[in-house]
Amino acid sequence: MSDRREFRDLASPEEAREAVDGLDIAPEPETVPLDAARDRVLAERIDAAIDVPGFDRASMDGYAVRARDTFGADEADPKTLSVAGVVHAGEEPDVTVEPGTAAEISTGAVLPPGADAVVMVERTTETDDGVDVRTAVAPGDHVMLAGADIAAGARALGPGTRLTAREIGLLSALGVDEVPVRGRPRVGILSTGDELVRPGDALDSAAGQIYDVNSYALATAVEEAGGDPVLYPHAGDDFDEMERLLREAADECDLVLSSGSTSASAVDVIYRVIEERGDLRLHGVAIKPGKPMLVGTIGDSAYVGLPGYPVSALTIFRTFVAPALRDAAGLPAPETAVVTGRMAVEERYGEGRRRLLPAGLVEDGAGTTLVYPVDKGSGATTSLVDADGFVDVPAGTDYLADGEAVEVTLFSPAVRPPTLLGMGEDDPLLSRLLDEIDRPRYLPVGTAEGLRRLGDGVPDLAVVAGPVDAEPDATDIGGWTREWGLVVTEASDVTSLSDLVDDSVRFVNRDGGSGLRRSLDDSLDALADERGVGRAALTEAIEGYELTAKAHESPARKVRNGDADAGLGLRATATKLGLGFVPLGTQSVRVLAAPDRREKPSVADFESILDDLEARTDGLDGFDPR
Amino acid sequence: MSDRREFRDLASPEEAREAVDGLDIAPEPETVPLDAARDRVLAERIDAAIDVPGFDRASMDGYAVRARDTFGADEADPKTLSVAGVVHAGEEPDVTVEPGTAAEISTGAVLPPGADAVVMVERTTETDDGVDVRTAVAPGDHVMLAGADIAAGARALGPGTRLTAREIGLLSALGVDEVPVRGRPRVGILSTGDELVRPGDALDSAAGQIYDVNSYALATAVEEAGGDPVLYPHAGDDFDEMERLLREAADECDLVLSSGSTSASAVDVIYRVIEERGDLRLHGVAIKPGKPMLVGTIGDSAYVGLPGYPVSALTIFRTFVAPALRDAAGLPAPETAVVTGRMAVEERYGEGRRRLLPAGLVEDGAGTTLVYPVDKGSGATTSLVDADGFVDVPAGTDYLADGEAVEVTLFSPAVRPPTLLGMGEDDPLLSRLLDEIDRPRYLPVGTAEGLRRLGDGVPDLAVVAGPVDAEPDATDIGGWTREWGLVVTEASDVTSLSDLVDDSVRFVNRDGGSGLRRSLDDSLDALADERGVGRAALTEAIEGYELTAKAHESPARKVRNGDADAGLGLRATATKLGLGFVPLGTQSVRVLAAPDRREKPSVADFESILDDLEARTDGLDGFDPR
Repeated sequence: MSDRREFRDLASPEEAREAVDGLDIAPEPETVPLDAARDRVLAERIDAAIDVPGFDRASMDGYAVRARDTFGADEADPKTLSVAGVVHAGEEPDVTVEPGTAAEISTGAVLPPGADAVVMVERTTETDDGVDVRTAVAPGDHVMLAGADIAAGARALGPGTRLTAREIGLLSALGVDEVPVRGRPRVGILSTGDELVRPGDALDSAAGQIYDVNSYALATAVEEAGGDPVLYPHAGDDFDEMERLLREAADECDLVLSSGSTSASAVDVIYRVIEERGDLRLHGVAIKPGKPMLVGTIGDSAYVGLPGYPVSALTIFRTFVAPALRDAAGLPAPETAVVTGRMAVEERYGEGRRRLLPAGLVEDGAGTTLVYPVDKGSGATTSLVDADGFVDVPAGTDYLADGEAVEVTLFSPAVRPPTLLGMGEDDPLLSRLLDEIDRPRYLPVGTAEGLRRLGDGVPDLAVVAGPVDAEPDATDIGGWTREWGLVVTEASDVTSLSDLVDDSVRFVNRDGGSGLRRSLDDSLDALADERGVGRAALTEAIEGYELTAKAHESPARKVRNGDADAGLGLRATATKLGLGFVPLGTQSVRVLAAPDRREKPSVADFESILDDLEARTDGLDGFDPR
Repeated sequence: MSDRREFRDLASPEEAREAVDGLDIAPEPETVPLDAARDRVLAERIDAAIDVPGFDRASMDGYAVRARDTFGADEADPKTLSVAGVVHAGEEPDVTVEPGTAAEISTGAVLPPGADAVVMVERTTETDDGVDVRTAVAPGDHVMLAGADIAAGARALGPGTRLTAREIGLLSALGVDEVPVRGRPRVGILSTGDELVRPGDALDSAAGQIYDVNSYALATAVEEAGGDPVLYPHAGDDFDEMERLLREAADECDLVLSSGSTSASAVDVIYRVIEERGDLRLHGVAIKPGKPMLVGTIGDSAYVGLPGYPVSALTIFRTFVAPALRDAAGLPAPETAVVTGRMAVEERYGEGRRRLLPAGLVEDGAGTTLVYPVDKGSGATTSLVDADGFVDVPAGTDYLADGEAVEVTLFSPAVRPPTLLGMGEDDPLLSRLLDEIDRPRYLPVGTAEGLRRLGDGVPDLAVVAGPVDAEPDATDIGGWTREWGLVVTEASDVTSLSDLVDDSVRFVNRDGGSGLRRSLDDSLDALADERGVGRAALTEAIEGYELTAKAHESPARKVRNGDADAGLGLRATATKLGLGFVPLGTQSVRVLAAPDRREKPSVADFESILDDLEARTDGLDGFDPR
């Protein structure tokens, strides 16, 4: 397995940054129409090619006059001028203002020959003879002279200017309808690996297929960094096809990104293409997540190979590739936003690499920002959205202490931490209620783990289903009850818990930390008591008791798919999926607030939602406000 | 002129905000492909429809084993297992792991039946008999169970989530290829007024035509606020056509914006359409810039009428319309960035309306942010880009004192004030040199005004051409010389300054504050001395001496266009425009730094550019490093 052999000699993050910065990915400038120029970057200076305005322009409604004809005029002693004509905006004056005359004029109209000022209409009175001017004006009053806004030949906008509505406005005024802008680096994206399927296509999980996360996520990240992504067809592990696509992408793009294949042979293909047509400049970087990384060239194109796991691929992209892309696109270095907080828990490390630790943020009751690590293990995609940024942990760090001050670099300055952080049991009514809160985050870690982390002081709320061993130090702010039992096929013969034990029923359980599992185990204890045996005697007789699923719908879905005969679940789920249901009981779901978070606005909002559940349980069978 | 009559009763800014917020501009949700979902906002909650991963997945390269077969294994005493086969990523296992056996497995591959854990390859040794396992593993080690990342039925993303690369990644993992998103409000943009011409089309300045600034600038601003702009053809002041377009836009859009016409009849058309098909809710707002503003409905569409001047139109849009658009698009309120600074100059007001004063920012030598008003008069478009934000000045404020602390709301959080602020003479070499500085701002106010404002402590640099009356308290950091004279047609008979006085030559002068004008006047003084007359005797004899232009190329351009026979200008300009040149002298251009700004990095950068002008004067005739 050559990738293990090859990645032994890791480059430092600084070397990796230099290697990527040393690639030439700057595209040629291009010309775009003005209405497509938003957010583009000027490739060169724009000088005004015309005077703006192009003529001496009236800046008020009123009368164009010869200023000296008004000298001495005031409210008490107006000067009377005869009216020689009218000038509207957008027409060439057909009148000349001779001494003793005036021309009615609209804002924006051309000052007629002879006139050198405008008197505001408010300071005039129409008379039978013409117009009485009740104020004196100086030459140039209420007139914008030709070129006074910007004159032909003057510097209007410098190279490197990013075009917003304001700059587009100025370019419009100059009559510019085609704008020379920095090119957007064209970035080819190849995903390799036989296991990958494009979203929208059918997935064969039994054959180990997974959806291709990196293609669309990287394409979006490329756009965010000012590049123009091009998705190439998925090559699988067909090496000839992979080689052909690599060459094609290198011919067509400024930069080629590949990611995904974990197979040694795929890496060998990439090596061969790079060796034949370019050079390999760096191989592996000492950072976590992200170790596997290739930097080199293929023909005239730059090449960066990214790790396959999405969190790793996006981290390497963000850290090393995005800055180079922005630079090539002429965009300024992104604003980074750094938040200082305190570790909510201790975090220990067994390995020496520098680490970009994905982290979530939550504010405690005193307004202190708490930082908790988000790590669902290699390959998890939910950590993409469960984190707000990362803590840069230097190489050799053994641990971050509970309460230690750390800096979190947000994924973007626009990231705003969730207003409400909950952890605990998953539940369909809870999902609905969260929709009513602005930017909540809920981690469905189960009842037991939710309570543990509430005790650690991390979440605002824990959601607890069924009985608990020890009542936590927390405030019950509301809840509901839900009917639980066995979700079965419509035609099932299963009618009770005993059937699970006594008949040959393929069962799917929930994991140990869930409230549903706890209620099932309590019922099994009762049945064991009834029969005068130990619980183990019953659980060993249940086919699949050890086969657990992590979410409330999962066992029922296995039943619907024909992979099981009965699953632990909710009546609401059976109704939703059109399955049968064997009721075993009703359990309470309680929302517990951390004692110091009662005053958080989002907790108060959630409490008032919980106070009025009547209409919100509509369509959820077996759910009742308590 | 009905607009003057109508706008007498002005609404407060708060009433205007309420009136716009009360309009219904929210579009229907829509469905977009995943690769077009960047920056869109989820219209509804997305629950996982599948387990991710969809199977128990190896998270390391190594061997799939039954954990209990490894119990007791360590480095000293490995357990030997026979190898039953190989499982690669993306294939269905064709092997079952029986007791005493293992299967080689790649990261990402399906855990084969029988196995419940993976041993990392680093803790194994291939042997002739199979594989030696040098560590014990527990069930589940190095395996990501089906649904452990996210389980079918679980809440994945909430409504209102803005989609970045991270969310697109999670949606990919769920196989979602079509995303329900909030609609983007469709915003029709109509510009009215006979004088407007679309950028790119020919302009007849003599007929008072100007380029239409508002259409493209508003379209860009609409996009920035999350809307989808639709430009309607320009209706001029053809009232039937304007009425037809208003009705069409109202039928097709969620919101119609009009701007531009200053004619009373155009406003009357808008009134008529609103009266017939909708209602008028507000008319005129007490804010400057921006007084003329209409809010109402036309059929099912909302309608806002904006002022015609670009700065006013964009201010009203930004203040009242953009927040409502963002809200309708489901976007969060924009982050505002407010900078506190000190007024660099006094600013007096003669009128009581609340005012959004466009302001520029500059840092003084001590790092204090100075704020200076940017006001080139009604209708100027350069103030769009010469300001960084605005100061909200309450109604009734008489003045802002020099040194007074004020808050400047930046146009967007991404606005970064210029690194270097210069004012003074305009000059073609200077334009080039500024291109080498990151984000400079240069206001070509002329030599005299540049010196005055340097004295006020506003700019970092003043650029001064020709002689000055009093040497300012400033440091000369470099400069050059430029040859000046009369720019004439190739066939011109003009060969000296005397010809200007003595012959019938149509001349174009520069304005009084420019260095070129000062040098011309000094030469005229010398000629007058020679002839024993006063200067006035000469200037009165020059046809066009009082006809001044604001920028260095303008007089030459009038010569090229046949509107004049001679213009005050530079030899470089004559060469550039292919015109003749009568040299009258050489003048120095000096760059003067404010004493407290010498240490600013941008000033130091500029000084080093000035130290090496040799190559930079290439192609500029008559320019020499001094």
